[in-house]
Amino acid sequence: MTKTGVCYVGVDLGGTSLRALVADDEYKILGVKKVRTLTTGGPARLIHRIAALVESTLEEVGVRRSRVRAVSVGAPGPIDRSRGIVEEAPNLGWRRVPLRSELRQLLRVPVFVENDVNVGLVGEHALGAGRGAKNVVGIFVGTGIGGALILDGKLYEGARGGAGEIGHTVLVVDGPLCGCGRRGCAEALASRTAMERDVRAAIKSGRNSNVLKIMKKKHKERMTSSIIAAALKKNDQVMREVMSRAQFHLGILASNAVNLLDPECVVIGGGIAERLKDSYVDPIRETAYEYFLRPADRDRVRILSGRLGDNAGALGAIVLAKQRLM
Amino acid sequence: MTKTGVCYVGVDLGGTSLRALVADDEYKILGVKKVRTLTTGGPARLIHRIAALVESTLEEVGVRRSRVRAVSVGAPGPIDRSRGIVEEAPNLGWRRVPLRSELRQLLRVPVFVENDVNVGLVGEHALGAGRGAKNVVGIFVGTGIGGALILDGKLYEGARGGAGEIGHTVLVVDGPLCGCGRRGCAEALASRTAMERDVRAAIKSGRNSNVLKIMKKKHKERMTSSIIAAALKKNDQVMREVMSRAQFHLGILASNAVNLLDPECVVIGGGIAERLKDSYVDPIRETAYEYFLRPADRDRVRILSGRLGDNAGALGAIVLAKQRLM
Repeated sequence: MTKTGVCYVGVDLGGTSLRALVADDEYKILGVKKVRTLTTGGPARLIHRIAALVESTLEEVGVRRSRVRAVSVGAPGPIDRSRGIVEEAPNLGWRRVPLRSELRQLLRVPVFVENDVNVGLVGEHALGAGRGAKNVVGIFVGTGIGGALILDGKLYEGARGGAGEIGHTVLVVDGPLCGCGRRGCAEALASRTAMERDVRAAIKSGRNSNVLKIMKKKHKERMTSSIIAAALKKNDQVMREVMSRAQFHLGILASNAVNLLDPECVVIGGGIAERLKDSYVDPIRETAYEYFLRPADRDRVRILSGRLGDNAGALGAIVLAKQRLM
Repeated sequence: MTKTGVCYVGVDLGGTSLRALVADDEYKILGVKKVRTLTTGGPARLIHRIAALVESTLEEVGVRRSRVRAVSVGAPGPIDRSRGIVEEAPNLGWRRVPLRSELRQLLRVPVFVENDVNVGLVGEHALGAGRGAKNVVGIFVGTGIGGALILDGKLYEGARGGAGEIGHTVLVVDGPLCGCGRRGCAEALASRTAMERDVRAAIKSGRNSNVLKIMKKKHKERMTSSIIAAALKKNDQVMREVMSRAQFHLGILASNAVNLLDPECVVIGGGIAERLKDSYVDPIRETAYEYFLRPADRDRVRILSGRLGDNAGALGAIVLAKQRLM
């Protein structure tokens, strides 16, 4: 069946890496390929790069183009979904890029475009940590904090496709400055960027920490998930304190969402969760449980790390494409 | 048509007052009657009181029982909607009261029971401030802060009917103590109870204010909406500051909901909004606008006070009953 049945290609278009995944009609993964994103050369060049990656992935797994029912892309920023336009993606340097039509012209198959955080949660809901739940809140922690909502069994996108910005809900009125210009957003308290700010401030104030040395050694300019993991492994006290504070805020963020939306499941995704798994999510869950309005929710609401890892977005994009082709 | 068509009775069962409203099939209000709730004597006595109020209201407007298609009650606390049980209503002293079956036995018409905050928003969505919107967030400020959600055109109740507890989302980590036992919930920052606490603290610390004198003069033990209105009218400085702080927090609360749920409309309801209308909601809207992640939402998201006043709950209960009878 795999040799002749229909296939789908899911694409995860991130700020640093670009991934294509080929799966059959039952979501069996036939092949995955990853390259760096490269934004120099503008949108046209990157779109050609996406098309080339899709083609080479299909070739490697031996799937002819005629078997591909759709290519489905998870892309950053707000998306005009009906027209497949990426409205604004600062980390790609994109503004109103008609990704769908350009990619369709290059590949000559149906193309779908959806927000990257949304496809990540759709993947986890259909095939990963959120399976079987009707209502799932997704919190994705990375450079920023993204969010997505599955409500009453389907992706909830809001009045204008903008729902899910849980990273820009305020947890500490007049708290630290956020990238969005306001103060006290969850993103300014618990993202990787916020954690790096706090680690650097602690070191500047004279605290002892190995984080900057580890970054230098690994030739990283930013405090990536691998740096965080390495520092925690070495029991770096500053890293532990900063992490624990971020987890506390994420616990309250999760609890706010549970009190408001009464879901069965909260999925914590993104790079840190992927790398640290339970040791990251356990303290988040503990705080959330303390902040639940309904104590009985402790037995009813699961708070889990994502299960699909790096493939969540590409798989979710395929799930959405299949739903839209039905 | 009104003389012979079908009718509905909506009942708003509040902690202090009990209201019955008779409307025809087009929501034309034929009559409203209000009595005090009286919880002494236990649930059975209060349920008899509800039945008596329904009957006397019908009698006064000259509607025979045979024309009544349903009686629909908005009741406080979590509701087991499928069985019509009020799970827990501390201000009535109720626990697991089978309101639906008992009322049906007394009145011999179909009875529906739904949460009071939910019916309030359903009323405003169908007939009041939220008309025409597909997604509406309701924030009801009184002794506490209740919330309700209309998403994709219908009441969103969550996995276990518990959705909407926006009053127990944290806005200030480690903020003032809330009635729920946690700290920094919206309810602990902006409810009437929180405002009264702050006014009393200001007076205790030596600030000059007429609020306690106004309460004494009006024979009120609590700082009700009418006390707040009277103090503001007299330009009481403490009252103005406390109100302005509460409005600021409500603005952030509304913005959090907008950033997360991307609705077309936020309805601010409850006693204070009903009494002060725009002068209450305008500053809330201003702060919300400042905290919106998407500046364009300022032109797209309406933030309004409720339009149906005291009748919102009873009318919403009728709207829900009609939907369920379809």
